[in-house]
Amino acid sequence: MSKLLDQAVAELAKLPGVGRRTALRLAIHLLRRDREEVSALAEALQSFRNDIRYCRYCNNLSDEEVCPICADARRDRTTVCVVEHVKDVISIEQTRQYNGLYHVLGGIISPMQGISPSDLKIDLLLENIARGEIREVILALNTSVEGETTTFYITRRLANCGDIRITSLARGIGFGDELDYADELTIGHAIHNRTVIENC
Amino acid sequence: MSKLLDQAVAELAKLPGVGRRTALRLAIHLLRRDREEVSALAEALQSFRNDIRYCRYCNNLSDEEVCPICADARRDRTTVCVVEHVKDVISIEQTRQYNGLYHVLGGIISPMQGISPSDLKIDLLLENIARGEIREVILALNTSVEGETTTFYITRRLANCGDIRITSLARGIGFGDELDYADELTIGHAIHNRTVIENC
Repeated sequence: MSKLLDQAVAELAKLPGVGRRTALRLAIHLLRRDREEVSALAEALQSFRNDIRYCRYCNNLSDEEVCPICADARRDRTTVCVVEHVKDVISIEQTRQYNGLYHVLGGIISPMQGISPSDLKIDLLLENIARGEIREVILALNTSVEGETTTFYITRRLANCGDIRITSLARGIGFGDELDYADELTIGHAIHNRTVIENC
Repeated sequence: MSKLLDQAVAELAKLPGVGRRTALRLAIHLLRRDREEVSALAEALQSFRNDIRYCRYCNNLSDEEVCPICADARRDRTTVCVVEHVKDVISIEQTRQYNGLYHVLGGIISPMQGISPSDLKIDLLLENIARGEIREVILALNTSVEGETTTFYITRRLANCGDIRITSLARGIGFGDELDYADELTIGHAIHNRTVIENC
């Protein structure tokens, strides 16, 4: 096999979820694209990896020292939504239902994977809160054991931060989900925390 | 969203089978890799696209003017296996059952997709045959309508090339396939072309 092809396939196959067969398909596909397009892909990946920064306030990915959300004067600076990863910020932003700030922990507490609270940006969160503007902290972490542990840990750390409201995402049956397929814990929680239908 | 992240995601999402969600996952993954590793990926893609050549004899991908298979004196130069794509060469090479040469057509005749015989490397095949060494041409094309059309077309073109054996891949039940799941055409062909069990 050609060494150039071999190298391209080997590098592509290191991506998560890409086996050698898929890598070969991707490489062959690149041959059909213009050289400029392949250069654009290569340069986008390199400059993303080399030049990306983390916002000094919220730890979100950013092109500058401060990310566009933290720098935006129109955002509500009294609310901060704590998430695990950058992709959670994107998920919540796409709803257009939230106008506060974010705080990206960069992971969750997981003794199994050797991730302790000091590996996460929890101190940075407390520093931000210490500046006094924040009135509500939304803990938007997953409902896994690790997520609940992290929620519990942060709640404890926030206990002596003064009069701050600590909330979590509403749990219940998702839109479009069927009762048949929902698990017992979710249905139990949904019936316990049932909401009044306003229009009646 | 960060412009650098946005660009990386947009470029990755142009790859076949990669949506925006997967592209985001790949980009986030690259952040965890060393800068050198991401550079290696970017450079491998660019140099593959810019420096790869097509073998002047067989049209296979090659780093040099002549591919390693055509240049290898130990290969049987009396047999040529005609395939549609580069990936077919790799599939057959991986079997280690074939020691002849290859010829990559670069596609198959497909009026629906506007691919005519002149778009394929059929003249190059005839030129190679005209040099007089080749005694057998294996037409290893798919059994689709387009594949059969191409096989028929090439067979006709080879008719006045002298005493050359023209063969195709054996058709039958694949190893590990169950009769229950095989289609009628395959089973019919397999029973019609049944083979003698030598050990009896």
